[in-house]
Amino acid sequence: MTTQRIRDFLATRRPDGPCLVVDLDVVRDNFDAFRHAMPDSAIYYAVKANPAPEVLKLLAGLGSNFDCASVAEIEMALEAGATAARISYGNTIKKERDVARAHALGVSLFAVDSHEEVEKISRAAPGARVFCRVLTDGEGAEWPLSRKFGCVPQMAVDVLVYAHQLGLQSYGVSFHVGSQMTKVDAWDSALADAKRVFVSLAKQGIHLQMVNMGGGFPTKYLRDVPSAEAYGKSIYQALRTHFGNQIPQTIIEPGRGMVGNAGVIKAEVVLISKKSDNDDARWVFLDIGKFGGLAETMDEAIRYPIRTEHDGDEMEPCVIAGPTCDSADVLYEKNLYPLPISLSIGDEVLIEGTGAYTTTYSAVAFNGFDPLKAYII
Amino acid sequence: MTTQRIRDFLATRRPDGPCLVVDLDVVRDNFDAFRHAMPDSAIYYAVKANPAPEVLKLLAGLGSNFDCASVAEIEMALEAGATAARISYGNTIKKERDVARAHALGVSLFAVDSHEEVEKISRAAPGARVFCRVLTDGEGAEWPLSRKFGCVPQMAVDVLVYAHQLGLQSYGVSFHVGSQMTKVDAWDSALADAKRVFVSLAKQGIHLQMVNMGGGFPTKYLRDVPSAEAYGKSIYQALRTHFGNQIPQTIIEPGRGMVGNAGVIKAEVVLISKKSDNDDARWVFLDIGKFGGLAETMDEAIRYPIRTEHDGDEMEPCVIAGPTCDSADVLYEKNLYPLPISLSIGDEVLIEGTGAYTTTYSAVAFNGFDPLKAYII
Repeated sequence: MTTQRIRDFLATRRPDGPCLVVDLDVVRDNFDAFRHAMPDSAIYYAVKANPAPEVLKLLAGLGSNFDCASVAEIEMALEAGATAARISYGNTIKKERDVARAHALGVSLFAVDSHEEVEKISRAAPGARVFCRVLTDGEGAEWPLSRKFGCVPQMAVDVLVYAHQLGLQSYGVSFHVGSQMTKVDAWDSALADAKRVFVSLAKQGIHLQMVNMGGGFPTKYLRDVPSAEAYGKSIYQALRTHFGNQIPQTIIEPGRGMVGNAGVIKAEVVLISKKSDNDDARWVFLDIGKFGGLAETMDEAIRYPIRTEHDGDEMEPCVIAGPTCDSADVLYEKNLYPLPISLSIGDEVLIEGTGAYTTTYSAVAFNGFDPLKAYII
Repeated sequence: MTTQRIRDFLATRRPDGPCLVVDLDVVRDNFDAFRHAMPDSAIYYAVKANPAPEVLKLLAGLGSNFDCASVAEIEMALEAGATAARISYGNTIKKERDVARAHALGVSLFAVDSHEEVEKISRAAPGARVFCRVLTDGEGAEWPLSRKFGCVPQMAVDVLVYAHQLGLQSYGVSFHVGSQMTKVDAWDSALADAKRVFVSLAKQGIHLQMVNMGGGFPTKYLRDVPSAEAYGKSIYQALRTHFGNQIPQTIIEPGRGMVGNAGVIKAEVVLISKKSDNDDARWVFLDIGKFGGLAETMDEAIRYPIRTEHDGDEMEPCVIAGPTCDSADVLYEKNLYPLPISLSIGDEVLIEGTGAYTTTYSAVAFNGFDPLKAYII
């Protein structure tokens, strides 16, 4: 998954310290794959996955829309060339003054999951379109889900009726099947819920127009994942099943699926040691860890492919840890990670599939270490 | 725990957005308490807990030494007025070129826990003093410990002999009983281990001079914690028990205990909602969460006191979550957190005991949110 362009960049530039290199050609390929696999859905790139200006500019040029989590992300999308009409303020948790700022910037599509949020939007962005997020069960997702976003479908009906009463345009329903979702049929039950919300509201004379099917599209880490095409087929089949010949507008919000496999982190082995002479496992300490960009190793949720220059050699299971003085800064310990016995202090390693959810997650200065550098090529 | 000076600052300045305010008077009091409770130990402030220049300058002026995790932290301590002789490079995981940079800056005290690290130091900082960290069991600590740092005592003997053979000054032993350690007798068994290492090395003609007793001193969150004096009494008793009338030089490395209770985070309630009409608990969303500085709520390890303007009112258990679109950004959900029923959207809350391990842990730009601002007064 490390492209030749990334290899060439690293060989030529030899950047010091850990860094992420993102190959824009891969991002373009991913965008094309989504557009081809789901031609009837609007693509809203989840900016939070990787807000690098070069990535946003490329996607804006390709015709992508943008799912933004904050006013800062809205401003970045506008700066990259997107019009406000192509931006969704997809965070269900917004300060009223941030809603007002987004409204002033021309944004007119907002996520909600509560009556309280509807009230804010009715005051700060009168007349805007809102979609209500419903809770899904998230089974099969590799990054932990919670009940943080969304409400139960029956409450979503009430929220959208309330929005209508307050003069907003009750526009649709959203859900998220869970990040790094490897089951292509995970959208089916959520679409069934969405349809029920459509029907309930239609009975009250409110005609929703859009289903935001969220993100969740995976990137390849150690295991193969289904293609965009397989997701597209399964999702469109589910749409036909539940909506028949009245399929609404649909939105998808790929983040990880758009940029995850486009990025590779170059890191360095700082130390390899044991805790006792008869320790079973070697500890391999890298110059990047949980606080330097690899936050998604929390609970060992995401297991990144790690390549070394010794990959043909005999392997042995290792603990992998980061460089900080924090004892929680351990990447893989419950499930040891096989690395070559010949791996040495000072060697470089490539951590693949790191284009999403790394740079911005990085701690600003923990232990005095700089945040993760990024090169977009 | 919110001092009048902090209240006055917030009332006068009305800073927008979440921010940490640190009262230097409290830091000074904490330093004095440690110096009074452990007069025979050198205080090495753990810079990583809060590296704000004002904090470092105050402590340098008071005569503190500094435990640094990186070259950047060493440079900050020097900048604050410490001499290189007052600095310990306490991270057991160091790039050889960073050891060389520290050596060039005049630092001559280094932590090790492996033969490999000893080799680096012998090459990059010839003749330096080294202390070897031994593993402790960490029982009773509230922040999760791991086996990340240190080696078993028998291996520490070998490491220090090796350091001696390579021309380094085998100077002492270190250990860390675990962060937020609330048992005052936790140092006893580690000091017994340290003594055994001293004895083993003395038999080989190597005379260690120092025990680095690490940090672990707690700050008050919701529960009371023992005073510095109680720790001092218990630790000096253990030193007498194990070292008799040959008590070595000792070092302590308070971080959390030095600055934790000096800081308060001002945050805002962004949303209060439920997930269904008959949901048991309200969800209270703040404008700060796990990625904005409250990383130590990971696994709900640290439970911060949260003050509101309605604290006399009836309370009910709530889920508390942060403002990002990340489902893992939930602070307290397994153990619900009691908050006043009268708490409303837009209200300010004060999160106490947040002077340590907050600002630098903050994500650099996750979801477009700025890192946590800090005001040192």
